[in-house]
Formats: sequence, structure tokens, C-alpha cells
Amino acid sequence: MSHDKEIAVLIAEIRDFAVSRDWEQFHTPKNLAMAIAGEAGELVAEFQWLKDEESIRGALSAEKFSDIELEVADVAIYLLRLSDVLGIDLAQAIRKKMDINQARF
Amino acid sequence: MSHDKEIAVLIAEIRDFAVSRDWEQFHTPKNLAMAIAGEAGELVAEFQWLKDEESIRGALSAEKFSDIELEVADVAIYLLRLSDVLGIDLAQAIRKKMDINQARF
Amino acid sequence: MSHDKEIAVLIAEIRDFAVSRDWEQFHTPKNLAMAIAGEAGELVAEFQWLKDEESIRGALSAEKFSDIELEVADVAIYLLRLSDVLGIDLAQAIRKKMDINQARF
Amino acid sequence: MSHDKEIAVLIAEIRDFAVSRDWEQFHTPKNLAMAIAGEAGELVAEFQWLKDEESIRGALSAEKFSDIELEVADVAIYLLRLSDVLGIDLAQAIRKKMDINQARF
Repeated sequence: MSHDKEIAVLIAEIRDFAVSRDWEQFHTPKNLAMAIAGEAGELVAEFQWLKDEESIRGALSAEKFSDIELEVADVAIYLLRLSDVLGIDLAQAIRKKMDINQARF
Repeated sequence: MSHDKEIAVLIAEIRDFAVSRDWEQFHTPKNLAMAIAGEAGELVAEFQWLKDEESIRGALSAEKFSDIELEVADVAIYLLRLSDVLGIDLAQAIRKKMDINQARF
Repeated sequence: MSHDKEIAVLIAEIRDFAVSRDWEQFHTPKNLAMAIAGEAGELVAEFQWLKDEESIRGALSAEKFSDIELEVADVAIYLLRLSDVLGIDLAQAIRKKMDINQARF
Repeated sequence: MSHDKEIAVLIAEIRDFAVSRDWEQFHTPKNLAMAIAGEAGELVAEFQWLKDEESIRGALSAEKFSDIELEVADVAIYLLRLSDVLGIDLAQAIRKKMDINQARF
């Protein structure tokens, strides 16, 4: 039993997608960091003219929610790809950072 | 059976951290999208003066790798928190977007 | 004689554009900072799969150069708008920061 | 008479600063686009936990305003440097984009 492979499975799917298109040559850590910043820019743009109260789930139209969901996915996909390429254990990195945050705040 | 709870467990840990500090009031979707963009900016800054070949794992110092790992974690933490607050099933959103990408490329 | 009004003239043109569309209500400093991050994301995305040597002027197609030029303009427009709304003297702020950089490096 | 050299003067100062430190080798268009995204991330981070009404000039402390001013300057410096390196006439690019926006909205 274990629920600690969900992220590894997603990473493998994303890797296969890239490999089958011969995109590994583009997926340097530097380029992937840029892709994350680019997608994060698209995500923040979804919210830029909304008031706080217009940005909550209950206030978003189905179409707007779907757009946001896909932008979130785009950031996640490149983040998982970068973790794969750099050999970062993402769950462990998150816990390491949470521990630092626990100590700090 | 099932390795599909790893992300849910991380999300719950991040939520508990925020709730125990009474930070939910700050964690509107709009603000969390900004935090993702801010952290993505820090991540891209780690790579901005590196050549492609200097950005690969084998070329990074242990200290630089650790800095990058923590920036990746920061983006991931806010991405998981936004998914939680908006009720996005992140693994499902990633697969939905991968299917769109499959059809497109 | 004076060449110190070029930025002020551009700022006034951008302000008029916003005012005539009743967009001032959206142009809070917070929202404009988000717009800058969003446009910076689009700008960085233009370069994400290019090698360094493919990113120089002589290597860019006319169409790609024009796309980049307009993304640069988008970042600049929101930066000038934010400077206007916050009452930042942009040229003076740049010189203040350059002085700090001079002392530091 | 002419006030159309203010931006060119700033660009020349920023270029001199880079040249005198032998930083031109790092200032590829790709790297400068990353630097803009990185600084835009720092700028948006200044505002991420502020409410709209806390982000206006009158509500900002002198220290916070100064921090924001310097982040705005950082984005501007790299934007001017990128314009220089790519041979973009920034004022003209802004007007070209404003004309497109005029036609669109």
C-alpha cells in the first residue's frame, strides 16, 4: 500500500509525451523555468481585473473556471517536467520547504 | 491499492499550515495566483545568467541546486494551495490538459 | 530645450486611453502589477524555446521581431501606467536604482 | 526643440553600466527577457497580500513605497536594456501597440 506514486506517474506521462515528440532537446532546466514563468503569467492574467470576491469559485463562470483550471495545469506540467529533468523529488522538496516555513513563521 | 492520494495529502498539509496561522483570509484565488507568479519569477531568476549547459543537474553546485529545489517547492506549494481553494482536482486537470496537447501536437 | 518630457508625454497618452474607456476603476496598483507580470510572462514565452544565438536581432524573423516588440510595448505600457497611478517619477527611480547598483557592483 | 531623447539617454546610461562591468556577454535577449520576468515577479510579490485599497499611494508606508519604486525601476532597467540590445525604438513600439489597442477597444 502506498499513495506516494501519484506524482511519479504524472511525471512519467509528461516525460513520455515530450520524448515521443523529440522535445527533450528543448527541455533544458533553463528553458523549463522560462516556461513556468510564462504559464504563471497567463494564470495571473486570468485574475488581473477581477476583484477578490469575483475570483472565488462560486463567482466564476464555468468557462472562466475551466480556463483557470487549464492554466493551473500548464504551470503544473512544466513544474513536474522540470522536477524530472533536474532529479528533484517534488513531494520531498515541498516538505523540506514546509519545514523551513514552520520554523520561520 | 491506489496511489492517487499523494497530492491530496500534500494539499491537506499545506492547508493546515495556512489555517493554523489564520492565513486563509489572505489566500484568495487572486492573491494565490500572484504568489505563484512571484515565486515563478524567483525560479526563473535562478537561471537567468546561466547558459543552457550550466543549468543541467551535473553542472549545478549543491548550493545552487538546493536553492532551485526550494524555489520549485515554493511554486508547487502555492499551486497546490490555489487548487485547494478553487476546488481544482490537479491530477485530473493535468490529464485534461495533456489530452488537449495530445490532440493538438 | 529639454528632453526630459518624453516619458511624461507617453504616460499622459496611456492615461487618456484608460480614462476615455472608464478603465481607471480597474487600474489599481495591485491590478497593474499583475498586468506587468502577465505581460512579462508573454514576453519570456517568446524566447523560451530559442537558443541564445537564435534570440539575437539578426536571427529573428521579421514576424517574430514584431511579436517581441509588441510584448515589450505591453510591459512598458503597464509599467508607465503603474508609475502614473502611484506617482513614481520613473526616470528618477531608474537613476536611484542605478546609483544603488553602482555602489553594489 | 524636442523631448524625444529622454529614453535614449537612460538607455545609454544603462548600456555604459553593463559595458564597464563586461556584462554584455550575459545580456542576450533571451536572458534579458528572463530578467524582466524575474523582476516583474518581485514587483507583483510586493502587492500579493495587499487589498486593492491598501495598494494605493496614500495607503503605502514610505518604506513600502520605496521598495515598490525600486522594483518598478528594476523592470524598467531590463526593459530598456532589452530594447537597446534588440534595437527596439521603445517609444515607437508603445505607440504602435497603443494604435492596435485603439482599433481593438
